[in-house]
Amino acid sequence: MKKNKDKLIYGRHPVLEALQSGTPMDKLLLQQGIRGDFERDMRHWSRRLNIPLQVAPKERLNRITSGNHQGIIGFLSLLTYHRLEDVLPMIYEQSKSPLLVLLDGVTDVRNFGAIARSAECCGAHAIVIAKKGAAQINAEAIKSSAGALNIIPVCREQSLIKAIEDLQLAGVTVLASSLRAKQPIGELDLTGPVALVVGAEGEGVSRPVLQKVDQSFIIPQKGKTDSFNVSVASGIMLYEVLRQRG
Amino acid sequence: MKKNKDKLIYGRHPVLEALQSGTPMDKLLLQQGIRGDFERDMRHWSRRLNIPLQVAPKERLNRITSGNHQGIIGFLSLLTYHRLEDVLPMIYEQSKSPLLVLLDGVTDVRNFGAIARSAECCGAHAIVIAKKGAAQINAEAIKSSAGALNIIPVCREQSLIKAIEDLQLAGVTVLASSLRAKQPIGELDLTGPVALVVGAEGEGVSRPVLQKVDQSFIIPQKGKTDSFNVSVASGIMLYEVLRQRG
Repeated sequence: MKKNKDKLIYGRHPVLEALQSGTPMDKLLLQQGIRGDFERDMRHWSRRLNIPLQVAPKERLNRITSGNHQGIIGFLSLLTYHRLEDVLPMIYEQSKSPLLVLLDGVTDVRNFGAIARSAECCGAHAIVIAKKGAAQINAEAIKSSAGALNIIPVCREQSLIKAIEDLQLAGVTVLASSLRAKQPIGELDLTGPVALVVGAEGEGVSRPVLQKVDQSFIIPQKGKTDSFNVSVASGIMLYEVLRQRG
Repeated sequence: MKKNKDKLIYGRHPVLEALQSGTPMDKLLLQQGIRGDFERDMRHWSRRLNIPLQVAPKERLNRITSGNHQGIIGFLSLLTYHRLEDVLPMIYEQSKSPLLVLLDGVTDVRNFGAIARSAECCGAHAIVIAKKGAAQINAEAIKSSAGALNIIPVCREQSLIKAIEDLQLAGVTVLASSLRAKQPIGELDLTGPVALVVGAEGEGVSRPVLQKVDQSFIIPQKGKTDSFNVSVASGIMLYEVLRQRG
């Protein structure tokens, strides 16, 4: 059972006003069958602010709130999301060697928090997630991050592929960890502008992302167990960057 | 509320027989006020097999089982624990450079599992825990370890201080991570026989242990957040060992 502790906003006017004023949201839930201007408005704001929009039957919305939702519920976010296009120039102003962490389908809330914590610890400049298939940034994620999620900017992008292209255009080398890669991370030069892509526990980095990155690498290992936990793997990669940068 | 999913054994004869046949147990719970031969027997087996023995009022035992416990409950363990004195010679037979991980007060079950997973991934030969103040090795720990806890030996020792002394006598350099240490881990030589001590989230490695180890070190960091999650920190240390050993 999903615990419904998330803060909600519902009703057409309140949700639209919240979107227009840039209130951070994790999701929009639109009632099935709603068409016309209001549907178009919701789709527009979903795209513009990179908020996932989900369509669901009325009964589902009724289960979430007993209030008069008028076919729309917004799930308020605990974080203000950033946009990569705004954050990247600021990063280059701060540092000659940007360091970013891209999460490809990491949905476990505690892993997400722990990765954010390691990223902040290692001086990473931003975390990038996709609009779809990312972990919910709830109270548990923020707790697992030991507060790091309140410090490090989280960029929520339309697609990770597009984000990788934008990073590459800006001169950032995008590297992905993969169990199938040959090159150990320690042999890569991580002293320049770098973005590290971390995949989901189990599946790893998805194929389209692997095809897009500049290079993939492996974290050396010796045992019989499958691989490192995803937050441990991220910590190791970030440590290796820090080690090389001295 | 503690979920009582652990497998239990109770009653004087069944518990004594289980102990005599070496059945692995996580804890013995003895009813307050029990004296004489049976109490002496239980204390003897607790010492001999390094099983924590706890004394509790009858009401607590009654809450745990409605069976006729006769003042004693044993909590069966999912793992067979090893003894460092048996494991160490075997490790030296396998490798010139033993690598062990000592856990000082790591009680979080998921962190414990993730540390075991990283240890196995990095080819560590054993994990050492103390009889008191260790995480319970339950189904969640084994799941978090991705099965590694079924591969890597876990030594449960009377005291961590004694284990450190034994390791040092056997020629193992014992190193502890500490946020107060000056030397970065990357500057230590980790190619010889090494044991890494990891402390509890929050408190870190305890003072008596820090005084006993050969050297303490810090994992370099840059951000504002307190420190790495303990399982991430352990993964980084183990990676650094593997990196140095090529």
